[in-house]
Amino acid sequence: MSGEELNIKRTMARQNGIVQPLLTDLYQITMAYAYWKSGKVNDVAVFDLFFRTNPFQGEFTIFAGLEECLKFLENFHYSDSDIEYLRQTLPENIEPEFFAYLKDLTCKDIRVSAIEEGSVVFPRVPLLRVEGPLIVAQLLETTLLTLVNFASLMATNAARYRMVAGKNVSLLEFGLRRAQGPDGGLSASKYAYIGGFDGTSNVLAGKMFNIPVRGTHAHSFVTSFSTLEDLHSVMIGHAETQKSCNLLEMSLEWRKRVSAVIDISPEEASDGELAALISYALAFPSGFLALVDTYDVKRSGLLNFCAVALALHDCGYRAVGIRIDSGDLAYLSVLARETFESIAEAFKLPWFSKLTIVASNDINEETILSLNEQGHKIDCFGIGTHLVTCQRQPALGCVYKLTEINGQPRIKLSQDVGKVTIPGHKEAYRLFGADGHALIDLLQRSSEPAPEVGQKVLCRHPFQESKRAYVIPSKVEHLYKVYWKDGIIYTMPKPLHEVRERVQSSLRTLRQDIKRNLNPTPYKVAVSDDLYNFIHDLWLQNAPIGELS
Amino acid sequence: MSGEELNIKRTMARQNGIVQPLLTDLYQITMAYAYWKSGKVNDVAVFDLFFRTNPFQGEFTIFAGLEECLKFLENFHYSDSDIEYLRQTLPENIEPEFFAYLKDLTCKDIRVSAIEEGSVVFPRVPLLRVEGPLIVAQLLETTLLTLVNFASLMATNAARYRMVAGKNVSLLEFGLRRAQGPDGGLSASKYAYIGGFDGTSNVLAGKMFNIPVRGTHAHSFVTSFSTLEDLHSVMIGHAETQKSCNLLEMSLEWRKRVSAVIDISPEEASDGELAALISYALAFPSGFLALVDTYDVKRSGLLNFCAVALALHDCGYRAVGIRIDSGDLAYLSVLARETFESIAEAFKLPWFSKLTIVASNDINEETILSLNEQGHKIDCFGIGTHLVTCQRQPALGCVYKLTEINGQPRIKLSQDVGKVTIPGHKEAYRLFGADGHALIDLLQRSSEPAPEVGQKVLCRHPFQESKRAYVIPSKVEHLYKVYWKDGIIYTMPKPLHEVRERVQSSLRTLRQDIKRNLNPTPYKVAVSDDLYNFIHDLWLQNAPIGELS
Repeated sequence: MSGEELNIKRTMARQNGIVQPLLTDLYQITMAYAYWKSGKVNDVAVFDLFFRTNPFQGEFTIFAGLEECLKFLENFHYSDSDIEYLRQTLPENIEPEFFAYLKDLTCKDIRVSAIEEGSVVFPRVPLLRVEGPLIVAQLLETTLLTLVNFASLMATNAARYRMVAGKNVSLLEFGLRRAQGPDGGLSASKYAYIGGFDGTSNVLAGKMFNIPVRGTHAHSFVTSFSTLEDLHSVMIGHAETQKSCNLLEMSLEWRKRVSAVIDISPEEASDGELAALISYALAFPSGFLALVDTYDVKRSGLLNFCAVALALHDCGYRAVGIRIDSGDLAYLSVLARETFESIAEAFKLPWFSKLTIVASNDINEETILSLNEQGHKIDCFGIGTHLVTCQRQPALGCVYKLTEINGQPRIKLSQDVGKVTIPGHKEAYRLFGADGHALIDLLQRSSEPAPEVGQKVLCRHPFQESKRAYVIPSKVEHLYKVYWKDGIIYTMPKPLHEVRERVQSSLRTLRQDIKRNLNPTPYKVAVSDDLYNFIHDLWLQNAPIGELS
Repeated sequence: MSGEELNIKRTMARQNGIVQPLLTDLYQITMAYAYWKSGKVNDVAVFDLFFRTNPFQGEFTIFAGLEECLKFLENFHYSDSDIEYLRQTLPENIEPEFFAYLKDLTCKDIRVSAIEEGSVVFPRVPLLRVEGPLIVAQLLETTLLTLVNFASLMATNAARYRMVAGKNVSLLEFGLRRAQGPDGGLSASKYAYIGGFDGTSNVLAGKMFNIPVRGTHAHSFVTSFSTLEDLHSVMIGHAETQKSCNLLEMSLEWRKRVSAVIDISPEEASDGELAALISYALAFPSGFLALVDTYDVKRSGLLNFCAVALALHDCGYRAVGIRIDSGDLAYLSVLARETFESIAEAFKLPWFSKLTIVASNDINEETILSLNEQGHKIDCFGIGTHLVTCQRQPALGCVYKLTEINGQPRIKLSQDVGKVTIPGHKEAYRLFGADGHALIDLLQRSSEPAPEVGQKVLCRHPFQESKRAYVIPSKVEHLYKVYWKDGIIYTMPKPLHEVRERVQSSLRTLRQDIKRNLNPTPYKVAVSDDLYNFIHDLWLQNAPIGELS
């Protein structure tokens, strides 16, 4: 391993360092003690981790966070200091043998089955099924939820931005400064990339996860220059001939020529801004992408940018484009494109019309939809706050419910039918139609035979008796693989870029009306006839008979 | 240092491990190169870190995150692996001397002045003033923003919950599972405590920050028991006499007696639930706080809880209370309190009427206000999602703006007046009235003399000429202290519990109408006459004269 790799591993270990067994709710540990004390050490349980409602008023969710869950299982271990802390924190009368029991706990007897990371998933279909000793499985709850909830929420949010932006627009995540803590920012960068973003401004995320990083300069860079005298050096070597060029003189000359073409007086443009852009161009002649809204996009920023870009061209370099961070983005992007086109024509430089326009001011899904309607000319969105905080819905409500203990099914009843859990050890299948689209997700008891291609399957709504349909699948996908077994990662999770590809390929199997932004059609999740009857028999056995009085 | 302390330090170091110079936006580094290349290595800058709008439609904010900022400055250093990553990531033509320059960078020439952590703060008043080498000060931007934004948002959110809940209700943070990543959860626990919460369910936060941790059991604990046969042990020693008591027999006996008092048939209560509560009571006889809504609060949970609590009492233990996690919390808490009072009276046990009632289902500020109106009987709220994600506004918009360079003021103009920055090196003072309330925050140029007690001060709106007032302060507080200077923490930040006290004492200096939930009065932030003129002269110098055509 190279020093570089080692250091990245160390940084990741530091980040993972806080993902440890104490990163949990205290009640997991008090419950563990109560179970232990009541002789339930050998009880075996099944827990399902699932959500009840898709986020963002949508009808799909992207499952993410699996790899981090597996790493957590791998490292699950109470340190001496953890045990000492618990000893001080729990009541005095806790039996000391319990701490010895905790000290030796590992996940070796736990089995975790899961849906593939990056898959499209739906309410009530367990994302993870955790089986094994009741106490250990219970102790995993909070941490697994923490690792899955935000990861899946972010990946879903990013995938939604990707859908509204379309395939041909670049999306960059710019949210670190507004993220919920340093690690909130790292997670956001990682899962935004998985969900379909093209890169991030977050350098550490780039280093840790090998994600493309992007960035140019801020307004403060521009305001740090007041006049052309602030330029200490102005010379650049020609890209090919290496001949020395005076970028300031050439830019001033081009500013005059451009101002005539676009009918803006060169006196109106800020000289401080021109100095800043020249300085930036001298540092990054092949990567010249300039912020143009520090003073006035129309009267200063565009003029200065075009002047420097044309001067750079004379030195053998092609500018990349501009960024706009305020104002009416549709109008300004159209204005910028028209300006670039006029210059392309006036100076016979066709490439100039194709310069990149980046927009980055407080953008959310609705802004992009509205910009699409108005007909913008933006090539790339830089998206921060709304993306990384998932402003529209900042939490996914995954829950972790006991569904079986010692082979006996468990049901959690609720006056709210939506909160009734589906009991027992189950399998999940996705049934596809002849056109390749996913038709329905079907939950079955694990004892039932899998649905077969070409065979009619009765799919029932889990709680509404009359809602049923026959489905003849053209393809059947068993949604679970065993990822953790016998104390090791049993199926290796896919690397990040494959998870990212999985998101897009999985989304392609969904019908468009399920994915649309406005009033999407719900995707159906059904239970087999056998599971339906199983649920309702158990429900009747467990529900008290009320009394009218 | 004990092994325990060492281990906590290690965990904190791991958490802080990701707060490193690469946890930043790439553009900070590209700007640093452009500055370096254009000979601005010795330029000296002043940046202000401030926000423009209070969060949550309120009129105040709590400043937090300072201690973490100072630790970041202390550890600021690019590792070899960071440099190597940057070398690979930046364009090929970057001069190698720049990487040598980065490698040696530290914060030794930076000076950071700040408001005391835990203080009430207001829009436009800088929370941090960062002075020193332009390049270094610029490189700090993103990380400082990340550390201040979420910390301050969380502390403010928590303080708002504390205000609506009142002093006599306990508030517990239960949000880890819905937080934005593992560290989002830790930060939420820490800053919720600072903002006025009494504890957290997050065990690691308890260990790392010495915050009280709380928790009992979940629904899954209850559903893991089906019948009374699931109880493997039922005996408990009397608290004083150590005589062995059969908690099951006693609970069953009490269930009959209680059911007569509260007119609920014992047959309606779940035996699985009773078994679970007995099991929990056996483990935590002095800390018996039971979840009572797994099946039916009225017909099962309360009856079972009272039976076990009374049986425990016969064994010399006092139960703590109940938790309700669903349904109509106002109605159920009143029902529970009435039940406790009936039993207190029927069995002559006055303490029973005072049992603790914890409520914990999807609670936010509005829920608490509505419960207050309905007249609830809840003693403690457990608050998760809405608290830790700051659902109502998941980001605070702190910005970091250049205000001076090489002694020359800088102004950032904007078509939106609210976004115009206040230029120059400034001091901030809080002026208090005779009744001890804060009247106004006043920004002045650093060259001006401080306002004096009993002396008339002209306070002006920064942008509206006609808005002015004379203030005669009874007390003047200079808001800044130097916290970082000469490469060391120059003023030690206060420990956590003192910051927590500071929040409450600082809030007490605010008039009630500024703190109220509905239509609060804005607190005034003014500039001195001198600063007013300074801003507007600079504005006119920098704003282009438009042309009507």
